[in-house]
Amino acid sequence: MPASPAVLEGRNIRLLLEYDGTNFAGWQIQRRDRTVQGELARALRVFLREPICPIGSGRTDAGVHAAGQVAHFHTSSEEPVERILAALNGLLPSDIAVLEVEEADRDFHARYCAASKRYRYRISCAKAALDRTRVWTIYRRLDFDAILQASRLLPGTHSFEAFCKQAPPPDNFLCHITHCAWQRRGRELVFEIEANRFLRHMVRILVGTLVEIGAGRRPPGSLSTLLDGADRGQAGPTAPPHGLCLLRVSYP
Amino acid sequence: MPASPAVLEGRNIRLLLEYDGTNFAGWQIQRRDRTVQGELARALRVFLREPICPIGSGRTDAGVHAAGQVAHFHTSSEEPVERILAALNGLLPSDIAVLEVEEADRDFHARYCAASKRYRYRISCAKAALDRTRVWTIYRRLDFDAILQASRLLPGTHSFEAFCKQAPPPDNFLCHITHCAWQRRGRELVFEIEANRFLRHMVRILVGTLVEIGAGRRPPGSLSTLLDGADRGQAGPTAPPHGLCLLRVSYP
Repeated sequence: MPASPAVLEGRNIRLLLEYDGTNFAGWQIQRRDRTVQGELARALRVFLREPICPIGSGRTDAGVHAAGQVAHFHTSSEEPVERILAALNGLLPSDIAVLEVEEADRDFHARYCAASKRYRYRISCAKAALDRTRVWTIYRRLDFDAILQASRLLPGTHSFEAFCKQAPPPDNFLCHITHCAWQRRGRELVFEIEANRFLRHMVRILVGTLVEIGAGRRPPGSLSTLLDGADRGQAGPTAPPHGLCLLRVSYP
Repeated sequence: MPASPAVLEGRNIRLLLEYDGTNFAGWQIQRRDRTVQGELARALRVFLREPICPIGSGRTDAGVHAAGQVAHFHTSSEEPVERILAALNGLLPSDIAVLEVEEADRDFHARYCAASKRYRYRISCAKAALDRTRVWTIYRRLDFDAILQASRLLPGTHSFEAFCKQAPPPDNFLCHITHCAWQRRGRELVFEIEANRFLRHMVRILVGTLVEIGAGRRPPGSLSTLLDGADRGQAGPTAPPHGLCLLRVSYP
């Protein structure tokens, strides 16, 4: 919840953000490393002359991109939203873009109000030059049908204990997957997944495990055992961050 | 034409290339600067142990990208094309990818046999973080209808003297535009143009001029005067290189 009741008195501003995760140590503000939240807080402080720490819908790992991250902050400033948009884009570095700024309801909270999130993971089956910072390139041949077969097990509610970096462990591992699809686009295999919540590294471990299935190292059906609440050690490796992009966050 | 008759005795290999132009001083090999042709020549020399200078379908300027550049070279090597593909991709830096390698007819020449080329130019009407090295961001409002109206004058054969960096001047300025279209894709305006040939900076000066029309600084009909063979000084400024991408080269 926002820190200071004093600030809650002000307007509640909602931001839609795009960023290239390549040169960020993730979303969350850190003392030393360059982060998206840190850059945003600095730009807000410069423009609005208030100590503001924007709250995101959730963290993204170092290297992970976002096409539609949502954040909010409270401010006593009366600057119109168009001016905030232009000023932030001018003050922020080139790898963060503010796409929309709007006045939100008093009780809108980017994290607690989020109903679902959608992520995209891009795999390239051949060397890619133009999109090299946005795809995981895999040179070994993958059995796409096996990947599709395993992925059909994902929709619904499961315990994603095996697909979670458990430090610190969450209260529970239950996630409800509402959408999950693969698309072949030229040389790429593109995975999209939407759920009410995601655990730490969840999409990346899922993709790492599905790629092991595609490589023939696990049978497609083995995913159902993992979804019954297995250990982290039983799932596949964590896929690299730069193939992942937070596409959008939905609110009721 | 290829330099040495001795080398012409060998196989003729055709390459399909993708590159991110951001960190290149263009296609053409240079003594000091990092170029696509230079990197390619080096990788070929290392792998095939022959002094090979690949010939491209044409030069691209510093900063211009390619999704489908074509090049060819002659070699006495008997390496299978699959091995050449894998070796080149391993030896080349991450911003050049070889998409295809194939055996070409003896007389295939990437430049002289090219029947047409297609370029894409991307304009973003708002700040873009993920594609910031691939779009020209324009913050002022553009009249898209005026741009469309002017662009309808382009198909056919015209003298593009006003749209050419004339150092050195070409033999003639006639180009036959076979396709020309704008598309609105979210925040982007995407221009695609195909012609039998392109003069130096031609697409970039065309886009720079069309943007002036969109900004209301020139009437759409003024383009027809420019297409009658005007001076370079009468056309608009040269649009930045990083919005431009060589999409494909077609051969008979």
